[in-house]
Amino acid sequence: MDINYSDLGRGIEAPVIVDLMSRALEHPDVLSLAAGFTDNSILPSGILRQHVEDLLREDLTNESLQYGTNQGRPKLRQVSAQFLQSYVGESGDYLRAENCMITNGSQQALYLAMQTLCDRGDIVLVEEPSYFVCLEMLKGLGVELIGMPCDETGKYKPDALSSLLTTLRADGRIKRVKAVYLVTYFCNPTSRSMELGEKLQLAQILKSEELIIPVIEDAAYRELFHEEPHPVPSILSLDAFREFPSLYLGTYTKPLATGLKVGYGFCSNPDWLERMLRVKGHQDFGTSNFMQALVERIVGSGDFEEHLSVQRRHYSNKSILVGDILSKSGLEASGWRWENPLGGLVYWLRGPENLDTSLEGAFFSACIDAGVMYVPGALCATGSQANNCLRLSFGALSGELLIEAVGRFVDVAKVFD
Amino acid sequence: MDINYSDLGRGIEAPVIVDLMSRALEHPDVLSLAAGFTDNSILPSGILRQHVEDLLREDLTNESLQYGTNQGRPKLRQVSAQFLQSYVGESGDYLRAENCMITNGSQQALYLAMQTLCDRGDIVLVEEPSYFVCLEMLKGLGVELIGMPCDETGKYKPDALSSLLTTLRADGRIKRVKAVYLVTYFCNPTSRSMELGEKLQLAQILKSEELIIPVIEDAAYRELFHEEPHPVPSILSLDAFREFPSLYLGTYTKPLATGLKVGYGFCSNPDWLERMLRVKGHQDFGTSNFMQALVERIVGSGDFEEHLSVQRRHYSNKSILVGDILSKSGLEASGWRWENPLGGLVYWLRGPENLDTSLEGAFFSACIDAGVMYVPGALCATGSQANNCLRLSFGALSGELLIEAVGRFVDVAKVFD
Repeated sequence: MDINYSDLGRGIEAPVIVDLMSRALEHPDVLSLAAGFTDNSILPSGILRQHVEDLLREDLTNESLQYGTNQGRPKLRQVSAQFLQSYVGESGDYLRAENCMITNGSQQALYLAMQTLCDRGDIVLVEEPSYFVCLEMLKGLGVELIGMPCDETGKYKPDALSSLLTTLRADGRIKRVKAVYLVTYFCNPTSRSMELGEKLQLAQILKSEELIIPVIEDAAYRELFHEEPHPVPSILSLDAFREFPSLYLGTYTKPLATGLKVGYGFCSNPDWLERMLRVKGHQDFGTSNFMQALVERIVGSGDFEEHLSVQRRHYSNKSILVGDILSKSGLEASGWRWENPLGGLVYWLRGPENLDTSLEGAFFSACIDAGVMYVPGALCATGSQANNCLRLSFGALSGELLIEAVGRFVDVAKVFD
Repeated sequence: MDINYSDLGRGIEAPVIVDLMSRALEHPDVLSLAAGFTDNSILPSGILRQHVEDLLREDLTNESLQYGTNQGRPKLRQVSAQFLQSYVGESGDYLRAENCMITNGSQQALYLAMQTLCDRGDIVLVEEPSYFVCLEMLKGLGVELIGMPCDETGKYKPDALSSLLTTLRADGRIKRVKAVYLVTYFCNPTSRSMELGEKLQLAQILKSEELIIPVIEDAAYRELFHEEPHPVPSILSLDAFREFPSLYLGTYTKPLATGLKVGYGFCSNPDWLERMLRVKGHQDFGTSNFMQALVERIVGSGDFEEHLSVQRRHYSNKSILVGDILSKSGLEASGWRWENPLGGLVYWLRGPENLDTSLEGAFFSACIDAGVMYVPGALCATGSQANNCLRLSFGALSGELLIEAVGRFVDVAKVFD
């Protein structure tokens, strides 16, 4: 007999990230420039071994093996605040343990935020392009995505945004706009970071439209700057956003080890934080206390910062390597465009205008046949504006394999000249 | 400015488990017989240290520190199936890795199940009493709880259940009944296990009412039998339930270490499993791969079974200790009733008929003043039928502290004679 599902259960589609991760894991012959994996070769095995040993030796009461609190370990929340101050120069007064929640990666924090804000049919404003896993999650929750008008690099256009909001107000739909979602540091997928002026102007535009709604700032890649931190404070630290309930999302997943799945959120609005935590109480009543205790030691001891300096150098070198191949490829002359990233793990390539990079298109098939995979631009956008774009990740592959993969991609791209 | 929350965000109340866990953590002076903590003194610190060391030494590619799959590690799913066969004699043909998902404790599996099945206003049938965290979670999701008519030990009454379903059909509400939730092995809170005849008759009643809906069997305490496993197969193994989409929930949280937060579900319906996994893909796209790899080794090596035999002896001894104090307390003569548990971590006490054990009542206050805490029965029921009951957990406290805590409770209970 068929199950009579809920609206959510009935409507939910297969997440592309699961599909892409499975393809990557199941087809080791195809070199993946798609999956957002980090580089296994520099995962902190030694650091983990040492800290597990120290933790279990020093934790005489086995406290770390027992349940913790729903909100997360107080000390991990505190060292997370201190880390943001010392490492990327954050200084907002929101940086306190009580404003922080520890989650199963920053992904869960994002889910909790959207669950507490959005009913089916509500609207969230996103950049174009934006983080495709968030876009899919919102679709799964029945949320309508409205893209902020952006130029081809992913920078929002102030006048067009104002017009959009005016139209939404005229249509009576502005009441359904529940949040703005921004990826402000080395954005996945564009690698661009939002400048201070853009942040300030965004607050201005929202205020002038009397749209004082939650702003969610996803900073998952902030610590993975290549040479220096992006010198712009978070939205929570800016006076311009003081009226806005804001949520800053960070993670130890990408910059420390993806296998740990520990992230965090700092929230400027205690009532909202409390409601997100109540939902978390129902979902799992607390992220693995043992994982938290481990991360707490690694961050608190300074070993995280040391590991980050290794990682940053590594990814910076890989980024330069990919940039060199692309710049010598001749693709630019064929109408391809890109910027070299200053942080993060991805290149965002804009192909010739009529190229179709979708999973169903001939270009994707040709890449799979050539033994290389990418993330199609269309997955990262609300409409058709990124249909000729794609994301190449240099996170997982290294050295000869990375050179080979980018080479395979370039060979295919040239054929589609 | 106030946030315009979703229905879920607006309606959600503070989970009592978070409240109780915080009280336990924040008031070390009060001895807690409330929180469902396990006993720190026997948490498997040595086993963990050894397996982390082995894992990190042998995992030359750092695979365990990288993302895993959304569904969970194939080998962990496989050893989970094998474990259920070898340790508690489960033999259903559903016991295959592909029917299994690994989750952040079995709590997340429960949440995913309910999310995919229930819209606000839908109905779930539960035992009376039932697991209070599940009841609260369902309320949080806007689900209406309807208690199956049960006797005072928590055993459902077949005729009354049939009548209830007939009434629901007559009212037109039967369409809203989306699932049956059962805690079938050493039930939290009653410690009773469902007998084979009861399971078979339940299937019969549901079929005769043409109510072929998902059945969720929570078996979180099944492995924590004191002397021998409860000799009844799971619902998924019974032919009588073959037509019903069924979900069996197990966990490594309680029987191994609560700080790890790794649980699992076996689902008889591939479509339902797929939909739950899609939601999980949005919530976290996979439970910590490192934790999973660790649990996989501990279970696969047989160390879990060895650890369980230590645990079971330990909890069995504590159960006998509490039983002795209660039986010598004179409470029975004052109208208190209880059964000695054969597994799990709790005693379910039924006080004199007019006693009010609620968090707001004089009895709870008197207990706190005396320095002891319990879980009020009302939290575990849909109506007023457990208002004179309470749950005493002997999971966390040991030896003199356990004796002292139960003694404090008995002293208060005698005053309320």
